[in-house]
Amino acid sequence: MAESWENPRSGHKAVASDRYAEAGVDVAAGNEAVARYRGLLGEWRHPDQLDALGGFAGLFRLPGDSERALVGSTDGVGTKLLIAAELQRYGGVGRDLVNHCVNDILVCNATPLFFLDYLAVGKLDPDVAAEIVRGCIEACRAHDCALLGGETAEMPGLYARGEFDLAGTIVGMVAVAEIPDPSSVVAGDAIIALPAVGLHTNGYSLARALVPSSEWNAPFGDGTYADALLAEHPSYYRAVRRIEAVAKVKTMAHITGGGLLENVPRTLPATCKAIFEQQRWSVPPIFAELLRRGEIGAEERYRVFNMGIGYTLIVPVTDAPAALAAVPEARVVGWIEARAPGEPRVVIHPARS
Amino acid sequence: MAESWENPRSGHKAVASDRYAEAGVDVAAGNEAVARYRGLLGEWRHPDQLDALGGFAGLFRLPGDSERALVGSTDGVGTKLLIAAELQRYGGVGRDLVNHCVNDILVCNATPLFFLDYLAVGKLDPDVAAEIVRGCIEACRAHDCALLGGETAEMPGLYARGEFDLAGTIVGMVAVAEIPDPSSVVAGDAIIALPAVGLHTNGYSLARALVPSSEWNAPFGDGTYADALLAEHPSYYRAVRRIEAVAKVKTMAHITGGGLLENVPRTLPATCKAIFEQQRWSVPPIFAELLRRGEIGAEERYRVFNMGIGYTLIVPVTDAPAALAAVPEARVVGWIEARAPGEPRVVIHPARS
Repeated sequence: MAESWENPRSGHKAVASDRYAEAGVDVAAGNEAVARYRGLLGEWRHPDQLDALGGFAGLFRLPGDSERALVGSTDGVGTKLLIAAELQRYGGVGRDLVNHCVNDILVCNATPLFFLDYLAVGKLDPDVAAEIVRGCIEACRAHDCALLGGETAEMPGLYARGEFDLAGTIVGMVAVAEIPDPSSVVAGDAIIALPAVGLHTNGYSLARALVPSSEWNAPFGDGTYADALLAEHPSYYRAVRRIEAVAKVKTMAHITGGGLLENVPRTLPATCKAIFEQQRWSVPPIFAELLRRGEIGAEERYRVFNMGIGYTLIVPVTDAPAALAAVPEARVVGWIEARAPGEPRVVIHPARS
Repeated sequence: MAESWENPRSGHKAVASDRYAEAGVDVAAGNEAVARYRGLLGEWRHPDQLDALGGFAGLFRLPGDSERALVGSTDGVGTKLLIAAELQRYGGVGRDLVNHCVNDILVCNATPLFFLDYLAVGKLDPDVAAEIVRGCIEACRAHDCALLGGETAEMPGLYARGEFDLAGTIVGMVAVAEIPDPSSVVAGDAIIALPAVGLHTNGYSLARALVPSSEWNAPFGDGTYADALLAEHPSYYRAVRRIEAVAKVKTMAHITGGGLLENVPRTLPATCKAIFEQQRWSVPPIFAELLRRGEIGAEERYRVFNMGIGYTLIVPVTDAPAALAAVPEARVVGWIEARAPGEPRVVIHPARS
């Protein structure tokens, strides 16, 4: 069974949330679809497909080269697009998408090679399309990643006039020996987090339900709700490479749909659990506002939202100081403990208030 | 400038059609968007990106291996999806998509390695999603191509309840020495065509305007209009490999948006033109019906529709008999002539009636 379906498709699986369901996202249907895909892929799987580490991306043996593998991942921006479209702020979504994809294959330690975008619109506006693609190009260039092609489809009848969808596929490469191995994680290891700047590209169906469009231009923090909601999904590529230069990184997780509760377990052996202490990192103000409006439960918030952690790395505790010194914004946010069968795989101790 | 934008984005560029514009597809906007993309890519292009043969796909030098290149292409199914969704016939669209992508990289002589799908829905129905993904898996398996991953996004608010969008990305590999070279084409070469079974994945916005949904279940030919409109986009992979085994194939074109008029020129040097004689191949009945209903002009029909030719191969005329013997459904449909500056790059002589 290809775990690589799980993350790419785990916007569903991950989000077992009452409030999310009220916002129109059907978790049970998502889980069921993922189960069906598993069944279908169980019937046939290509022999050169490698076990996909936690399902953040798919791994494929490079033909004729046993030392290297190609890594591919497809993702979309989700309903963050609806905010961007409504506010006609198109510049960030291309960078959101590319950075999201870069992070997804970075979990496998892959270096980006090329990216292709898919832009579907109801009515093609060349200015808008160019602004979106410009964002993709900028983020690709920042990673020395080719924008190898793309498809712009005008589909009257499927999309409303001002609306659009944006998805993309990234392909990278990794040395097989450098693919992270969850079995290397042991009790006592430290969990290092790189900070999230906002929702990134997850939880927007719920966020839109909690902050209606009439409020998007209202002041919030140093700007507006729109500014906070559209804060761009960062790439963790450089920070990770800096940490890897000074610390032994065992496994990594990109905290997307499913949050810490669903993404971190993919990077652990079954014999380990991850303990987080929330007072060890700061949560961007937009999350506090969403929790307040939505009365979102203590567990649910860590599934629907990243809650301020964009990316995690597990390192030997002795390597943690060097990692923190290499990346000033990095924090030790928790540690690994032994896990007995039946215990949860992630435990989050809330901040004392 | 990356020609690879052209085909992936040439649903627009290619279709300079009055009737198409009436059906809601804005050709001028498409051309303008492509021009903007060109400008953006002109500012920066990755050094490992190779000149993309005619823009059917993008080519990227395999790191550390000067002999091979990766080939990537992203495409969608287009508004054929609206017919499938309305009729709840989901089985074919996954095969449509994969086969389309396989053909796009086949033009570069690439062998498929892996594919990733993007399925976006308003309301996730696991049965429907599984049926669509099953089609993708079947077509992947037929090409020994891994279904490496995918994304299923439920986006209430962007898509109506029963509607969905489907796109995909394929990655293949080719030996650099085997990338077709348009400069090898000379006057006197033969054009071999592989037949189309219907519209494949192009021209549906116009077709839907000409055949309203109320008629889709009405009898047409041996079945219904729906059967004719949903006829599945075939893969030309095996036929092409059989021809290549016995003939020197100089260049190839996948006849998608833009038809013969826009796709074949990409496979020719500027000093050559392609002459087609329409009486040399048969046109599926659905095209005659659409032309009759739409009063579509002699030239326009060869831009909006494939008009019965799904794929072309240019071979030395002396190799044509062997090619035809290898693939019974192949036809010699025309030849290459010298072209003076300013002359059209494709000339189609209509069938005598």
